[in-house]
Amino acid sequence: MVTGSTQAKWRVLGLHHVAFARGEDPAAEGALCDLLSTQPIAEQGAGFIERMYGVGGAFVQILEATGPGVVQTFLDKRGPGLHHVAFTVDALAPALEDLRARGVRLVDEAPRAGGMGSLIAFIHPSAFGGMLVELVEPKGAGT
Amino acid sequence: MVTGSTQAKWRVLGLHHVAFARGEDPAAEGALCDLLSTQPIAEQGAGFIERMYGVGGAFVQILEATGPGVVQTFLDKRGPGLHHVAFTVDALAPALEDLRARGVRLVDEAPRAGGMGSLIAFIHPSAFGGMLVELVEPKGAGT
Repeated sequence: MVTGSTQAKWRVLGLHHVAFARGEDPAAEGALCDLLSTQPIAEQGAGFIERMYGVGGAFVQILEATGPGVVQTFLDKRGPGLHHVAFTVDALAPALEDLRARGVRLVDEAPRAGGMGSLIAFIHPSAFGGMLVELVEPKGAGT
Repeated sequence: MVTGSTQAKWRVLGLHHVAFARGEDPAAEGALCDLLSTQPIAEQGAGFIERMYGVGGAFVQILEATGPGVVQTFLDKRGPGLHHVAFTVDALAPALEDLRARGVRLVDEAPRAGGMGSLIAFIHPSAFGGMLVELVEPKGAGT
């Protein structure tokens, strides 16, 4: 357990991405490419495809359900919609240690592998009045 | 009507903010201030308070319903949740003209006053598969 504040050991640097969950929708995909003048980076998740559309220094993440999993569960409950917001941190492990010590409820107790070589962890939505927050340590940030 | 492409006259520069709608929740407000090490800029809207939390060069916008209006309508339908995503553009009027010419359905046909001295317009969610998108021309961007 942490006895003093470890806040100084990590900080939020910015908005990393905002995620939107939906089913397959080529028209919406084309419209987003057109609006942002970009092509997404796609990766396969557990029951979904994740597409990252770069915009300035941040991303829009489209989560497309392809089978059972967290994205399909969200769609079954709420229909297509914005799913979570992700912040860039400079050091994820100390962030989780500090948040836990301050009584913040975590979904992921330890950093796990995310897209594009990042480390990620989700904070429980109860901590922010229902807003699902992800913390992202981008590849190379901790080295 | 626009006869050729006016795409070159405007562009999306980055993610401006992501908005989350909820009722009054001082605990969640404090938790967000703590996570982002910031205090929000608050403005009154029609039936809601809008609080902007700076994070890097972008914002998290918390929309707190205070009476009848679009935020309360959203809460009645979906409960607390992420509401829309906003992109910074360098020139909003040409953006709307161009999008309309390309058949994109708009909520706001012309720029209107937004928070912090900005000009804003919403695109209809049907254009992006259910994702409500706002375009923001920050104060001073067009001068």
